[in-house]
Amino acid sequence: MSKIWQKSITVNELVENFTVGRDTEFDQQMATFDVLGSLAHTQMLHSIGLMNNDDLQHVQRELKAIYHDIEQGNFTIEPGVEDVHSQVEMLLTQRIGDAGKKIHSGRSRNDQVLVDLKLFFRYELQQVVEETEALFRQLIALSEKHKDVLLPGYTHLQIAMPSSFGLWFGAYAESLADDLELVLAAYKITNKNPLGSAAGYGSSFPLNRTLTTKLLGFDSLNYNVVYAQMGRGKTERIIAQALSSIAATVAKMAMDQALYLSQNFAFVSYPDTLTTGSSIMPHKKNPDVWEIMRGKCNRIQALPNDVTMMTTNLPSGYHRELQLLKELLFPAFTDLKSCLHMATFMLQHVTVNTGILNDPKYAYLFSVEEVNRLTLSGTPFRDAYKQVGLAIENGEFNPDKKVNHTHEGSIGNLGNEHIEAGFNKLLSSFDFAKVENAVKELVKA
Amino acid sequence: MSKIWQKSITVNELVENFTVGRDTEFDQQMATFDVLGSLAHTQMLHSIGLMNNDDLQHVQRELKAIYHDIEQGNFTIEPGVEDVHSQVEMLLTQRIGDAGKKIHSGRSRNDQVLVDLKLFFRYELQQVVEETEALFRQLIALSEKHKDVLLPGYTHLQIAMPSSFGLWFGAYAESLADDLELVLAAYKITNKNPLGSAAGYGSSFPLNRTLTTKLLGFDSLNYNVVYAQMGRGKTERIIAQALSSIAATVAKMAMDQALYLSQNFAFVSYPDTLTTGSSIMPHKKNPDVWEIMRGKCNRIQALPNDVTMMTTNLPSGYHRELQLLKELLFPAFTDLKSCLHMATFMLQHVTVNTGILNDPKYAYLFSVEEVNRLTLSGTPFRDAYKQVGLAIENGEFNPDKKVNHTHEGSIGNLGNEHIEAGFNKLLSSFDFAKVENAVKELVKA
Amino acid sequence: MSKIWQKSITVNELVENFTVGRDTEFDQQMATFDVLGSLAHTQMLHSIGLMNNDDLQHVQRELKAIYHDIEQGNFTIEPGVEDVHSQVEMLLTQRIGDAGKKIHSGRSRNDQVLVDLKLFFRYELQQVVEETEALFRQLIALSEKHKDVLLPGYTHLQIAMPSSFGLWFGAYAESLADDLELVLAAYKITNKNPLGSAAGYGSSFPLNRTLTTKLLGFDSLNYNVVYAQMGRGKTERIIAQALSSIAATVAKMAMDQALYLSQNFAFVSYPDTLTTGSSIMPHKKNPDVWEIMRGKCNRIQALPNDVTMMTTNLPSGYHRELQLLKELLFPAFTDLKSCLHMATFMLQHVTVNTGILNDPKYAYLFSVEEVNRLTLSGTPFRDAYKQVGLAIENGEFNPDKKVNHTHEGSIGNLGNEHIEAGFNKLLSSFDFAKVENAVKELVKA
Amino acid sequence: MSKIWQKSITVNELVENFTVGRDTEFDQQMATFDVLGSLAHTQMLHSIGLMNNDDLQHVQRELKAIYHDIEQGNFTIEPGVEDVHSQVEMLLTQRIGDAGKKIHSGRSRNDQVLVDLKLFFRYELQQVVEETEALFRQLIALSEKHKDVLLPGYTHLQIAMPSSFGLWFGAYAESLADDLELVLAAYKITNKNPLGSAAGYGSSFPLNRTLTTKLLGFDSLNYNVVYAQMGRGKTERIIAQALSSIAATVAKMAMDQALYLSQNFAFVSYPDTLTTGSSIMPHKKNPDVWEIMRGKCNRIQALPNDVTMMTTNLPSGYHRELQLLKELLFPAFTDLKSCLHMATFMLQHVTVNTGILNDPKYAYLFSVEEVNRLTLSGTPFRDAYKQVGLAIENGEFNPDKKVNHTHEGSIGNLGNEHIEAGFNKLLSSFDFAKVENAVKELVKA
Repeated sequence: MSKIWQKSITVNELVENFTVGRDTEFDQQMATFDVLGSLAHTQMLHSIGLMNNDDLQHVQRELKAIYHDIEQGNFTIEPGVEDVHSQVEMLLTQRIGDAGKKIHSGRSRNDQVLVDLKLFFRYELQQVVEETEALFRQLIALSEKHKDVLLPGYTHLQIAMPSSFGLWFGAYAESLADDLELVLAAYKITNKNPLGSAAGYGSSFPLNRTLTTKLLGFDSLNYNVVYAQMGRGKTERIIAQALSSIAATVAKMAMDQALYLSQNFAFVSYPDTLTTGSSIMPHKKNPDVWEIMRGKCNRIQALPNDVTMMTTNLPSGYHRELQLLKELLFPAFTDLKSCLHMATFMLQHVTVNTGILNDPKYAYLFSVEEVNRLTLSGTPFRDAYKQVGLAIENGEFNPDKKVNHTHEGSIGNLGNEHIEAGFNKLLSSFDFAKVENAVKELVKA
Repeated sequence: MSKIWQKSITVNELVENFTVGRDTEFDQQMATFDVLGSLAHTQMLHSIGLMNNDDLQHVQRELKAIYHDIEQGNFTIEPGVEDVHSQVEMLLTQRIGDAGKKIHSGRSRNDQVLVDLKLFFRYELQQVVEETEALFRQLIALSEKHKDVLLPGYTHLQIAMPSSFGLWFGAYAESLADDLELVLAAYKITNKNPLGSAAGYGSSFPLNRTLTTKLLGFDSLNYNVVYAQMGRGKTERIIAQALSSIAATVAKMAMDQALYLSQNFAFVSYPDTLTTGSSIMPHKKNPDVWEIMRGKCNRIQALPNDVTMMTTNLPSGYHRELQLLKELLFPAFTDLKSCLHMATFMLQHVTVNTGILNDPKYAYLFSVEEVNRLTLSGTPFRDAYKQVGLAIENGEFNPDKKVNHTHEGSIGNLGNEHIEAGFNKLLSSFDFAKVENAVKELVKA
Repeated sequence: MSKIWQKSITVNELVENFTVGRDTEFDQQMATFDVLGSLAHTQMLHSIGLMNNDDLQHVQRELKAIYHDIEQGNFTIEPGVEDVHSQVEMLLTQRIGDAGKKIHSGRSRNDQVLVDLKLFFRYELQQVVEETEALFRQLIALSEKHKDVLLPGYTHLQIAMPSSFGLWFGAYAESLADDLELVLAAYKITNKNPLGSAAGYGSSFPLNRTLTTKLLGFDSLNYNVVYAQMGRGKTERIIAQALSSIAATVAKMAMDQALYLSQNFAFVSYPDTLTTGSSIMPHKKNPDVWEIMRGKCNRIQALPNDVTMMTTNLPSGYHRELQLLKELLFPAFTDLKSCLHMATFMLQHVTVNTGILNDPKYAYLFSVEEVNRLTLSGTPFRDAYKQVGLAIENGEFNPDKKVNHTHEGSIGNLGNEHIEAGFNKLLSSFDFAKVENAVKELVKA
Repeated sequence: MSKIWQKSITVNELVENFTVGRDTEFDQQMATFDVLGSLAHTQMLHSIGLMNNDDLQHVQRELKAIYHDIEQGNFTIEPGVEDVHSQVEMLLTQRIGDAGKKIHSGRSRNDQVLVDLKLFFRYELQQVVEETEALFRQLIALSEKHKDVLLPGYTHLQIAMPSSFGLWFGAYAESLADDLELVLAAYKITNKNPLGSAAGYGSSFPLNRTLTTKLLGFDSLNYNVVYAQMGRGKTERIIAQALSSIAATVAKMAMDQALYLSQNFAFVSYPDTLTTGSSIMPHKKNPDVWEIMRGKCNRIQALPNDVTMMTTNLPSGYHRELQLLKELLFPAFTDLKSCLHMATFMLQHVTVNTGILNDPKYAYLFSVEEVNRLTLSGTPFRDAYKQVGLAIENGEFNPDKKVNHTHEGSIGNLGNEHIEAGFNKLLSSFDFAKVENAVKELVKA
């Protein structure tokens, strides 16, 4: 493999294969972001007098051309080229000669990778937020639609109190809203500029890091250059935690779904096309989608630990294995997005069972209701309790199965409008528009 | 063990011991918060006509008395009493008779535990933030104090570039600032009111959850009652992630410290009283404090996974083992606070070695510096590179060991004022004053 | 705190408290094993001429006296004494003067802790095996007792095929048998002698490590002294893996139990004294024991990761935080043993529902049975399949609900005798008798 | 995608893609094992009269042909074919007509996957053992070769005692020997036959599971059919634990290597072709191979937790996400084998620094040695200690830097022959020959 910085002695091929591994595969996904980084970096170099007008013009023109090639799928890291940075630089020098090499001034591969990763993660987090929003809206819609359909509420997996589909769907919506707090924290930590930190110790070039920060749409800088490098691994861990929080919500919902699809519950059902079965077991509607979703999300729940295990106890400064974190994070984004997408899709086709509570085994659900009703109408609690207990004992307990819950967040007063307001407020804190505008500005002809 | 809700059949003692386990020990730590919850709950009951003036007055007076007893260490959960809620209720009924039992109206043990935990976690998070701030300030102070003292920067554990104590200490300060983003997210998720969710399905009482939210100083509600219950385990996981982020920063610093204390580095030293050694090995200054700190912090780094492992794949609704999460979270707060405290303490006594770079093995640190210097003064990069390479090869490389880095976040321009500004801004987002005022208001005579 | 090896400079008290932490609490549990180690070590010292006859006699007599004091509960590490080793040495010198100090010759605290831990773990593993055996026997007994009682078998939580209580109980028995393979591996790795490795680099004393190996009943030595030290952390991790394997089996069974106790399944039941409930919810029989068991076992399933997180990326050689592993391992033994014990206890009281399959929702369980029956009696599979499918479609499917499975490990041929034989064979590989005899020999008057 | 068992309603394509995911990719790797399973299964069907002579002959002939095609790389799961089982069955029916479909009698896809996985894992474990052996032999050879070369031994990363390359290399060899105990346990658990368990509840076919056990070279059966199914996930977890144990050893060694390659230690070196560097930083020899190895091994150390997270709290019975465990396990085998291979390769080229202890900073290494020497020659320990301490204090400590350690496992008596004997004994317990013979027998023309 040809390396731009190569020393005369060729690195042993076995070593090369072992250390590069699957890295090129992931670098391919970072290509647009690598170009964005170079567009900003070269503008900055020009601003501090380290690139002349002509070179800047040529470099910018060709980088934008490469950017559009990538967007149209016309870009691959060629066999024998080490990484995405080398591929871009090679294309550039092929087209505009030695000026192409100047894009590397005042940068090292370390901070180039750092900024590429930040831009990539920022983009992926935005997509995760968008998929999360879709699921959230779907859940709120289902909560409103089925707010009057009751189902048993369980504690200890024992039949306990009346619940409703309004509550059940809404709970997962509100859970996603809280998850978004973590995603926002991860986004803020991600959306800071490491460019200019060089190999993690800065450089003698009079770089203007504030300028690249603005050009790339970052909120702020990773100021301290040692910390900028330290962000590698840390950013991944925190993002993994944010993803794991959404994954936990989705996995729990998937577990409920698989359980409620069991014939022993039969609370929900799905069209035959969305489940798998067998013609001699017509009762079987295997919830494969929810199971795979549960598995993928549990995998993501273990992700932060994977990242931590690979980085803990490493002294400060770059270590080569940080590269391997791409193998963990990149597929996790793909998986989580597909899970969110499939959850929304499935829920678009869910049917809820409207007659669940007709089954006599659910009658006792209303015993607490009955005690409370008596209490509220004046019977001392202790007497109400005894009265209901006695009725049950004597087989004379005939609850009226109406539920009149009125407080905030209860069956009769779901508060979905408040949950939505909270979600929307968080959503607006991301300020994706600012980022999109910066990117548009960078690549415009 | 006497249980207030006890059915006639006595639960087998073996069962009792196994299921209660160490829970009383942790409940003891939640006592003040349990009383706060009851103070707010009873005010609310009164406001909706479920508690009369007299009862309210008596209950409030005695709850406040109990609160002050707890604060002065005069409160224990007596042997044979099941939990903190029962102990408080028992004391209350001893003092004011049956009115004491009314504090339980419109509540179940489930939401009582939920609100106690939220109040406890909120308080502990505040303390963690305060300890984090102390360490942050100490690190910034050291960064400023030693900003001109150089040390080698490593990549791959190989000597690479000049770094400085200003950068090294400052990096960990900036790391803590980012960690605070996660703590803030965890704090926001924690600081929402679950009270009124009863056993996780709400109730027919016309509760005013908005009122208790305000009285307890919560930012908002966990609206959906199913979600309020689902918050158990989830809150713990997210808090664990926030703690783990600080722990990761501290553990990494501890690893650096242990390494830099090794005679093979000898970058820092500590007074003999803060290390351990042996009189026949006078060279030995074992960094036990940093090692224990590293261990405790790595333990905390594994904590989110522990919480997840205990809660994943549980269907919605309460399950008894959620109680065991206290055994994980409560000691983690104690441990992390002690680690932060000890890190600050140790750093108050650190001595940095000011002559590190005199050792000839660090000469090559300046090879990149030299190339950059030549480049900036006009020599083409390629020629500069060759020139320096040749000088090194011929043993004629005599770098001047001055470092002139000027860009944001570099040795000569640490940007600590920006890092501090960011930290302070985050700090102010916590709004601890609002919470403290609410608590003061609740307990005032 | 007084330290035997103490240098003049007093270690700061804050440092002392932080680094010692809860260690004394765990050391207390290792007291008998510390004495056993010293009994063997001094015999060996005498054999190589480093302890004279008189000293040996005195030391042995008093160590045995201390051993019996510990066994009778008359031993505590006194306040101000650093650890168990110091406490024993102090008692010894109080009784027999300076000769007591000689027990430390040719040993360091490092290998003394190592050997104490190995002896402690070996003993605890034996107890785990014994509790595992009790549960295994109980499960086999239940499998045999209820071998003819059918219950539905699920795939994807969907009703699938006929199963039986014989299969269900037996499956967990066989699972424990496989778990024992891991416990045996952990036991073998534990049961090797690290004594004589000093601080991890051996010593110039002409120790006879083979002798102490024999005296302490170890199978073999950790030969390489660097490896002996490296075993700290590694032994704990491997033991944690073995415990986690049993825990996984018990947790899964507990999940099944909690589910099957749900009114939606109602496959098993327990006496009221072993569940918790409420008199107005007479249907509720909360499976708290199984839930706490599931929680504790899931905690143990996360344990190997905790150990790994604290030890990974540590270079070779002792590090102080290894001490903290006691906080992880010691309670895990207690917890797992109590879980095994409670599982056995609960299963002694389980009632199985003998009429489950009368519920019409389970009729389709027999569709595959029917197809197979037709196939075996000559109908081509494809035709049999069609025939059954048609019957179901037309509502004419009336399976005879008899199950005639005859192959190895099936409903009619459980093979429990083979499973027991396998378990017994593994059990006999532990050779606990050899260890017990060695210990008896060491402490005999 | 065409499915052999397909019901008329087509599963939604989105569902199909989501649930199948990368499964075909892994199935491809199991192809030979799928054929082996079918070869044994059909022989057994014939033996119980469920397949006639002609069909058996045809099926066996063609299965063997397919087996050889796979071995020669002429087999792919065609687009639109669901899995490896379907591909094999399709090829078979193309060649011999309807008889090809009979291979499915008395089997379900569940036990077919189970047996394929067991055979695959068994094969991979053998390869892991072989790579482990190569590394073990290399380490022992280095230990012997460099047994007289001293290096400092560290505790707390502080210079402590004399150690040697003999000890250092040997320690990792002995560590691998202990790891093999876990691999053996995993191998034994793996090497049991699940075939015949059908969908996890057995079947009414009069299968002879003992026969397939023998034909496939399994040690024994997973008797209980419910347990056979429960083995999915459990087998993976236990294998992951075994792999993680080797990975822990390799990762620790890699950490030592990266540290000892640092200029601050400079204990070992490697040819330039096996490290990476830069011509202006001629001192830099980045240990990329060891770092990537450390990263990959730490990834594998997190693997058992990943498996556990995906399977914990799942009730008994098959769940679809078990399929996803292939994504975790299959690459882990590849990675661990490559790490073992690269470790052996690197160590074939290591150079050890023979003059380390000439550096004066290592003089104090010998203070304990000196005390011990005086003690052994009759000076009371206390006096010896004082004498050496005084010499050091007065700058008159001139140790003779000879090390005379003679006990088992010490510098002068490494005991490598015992370590080898232990390793060899474990190795022979695997009985790979029996397995290989069974396979040869199955596929012979």
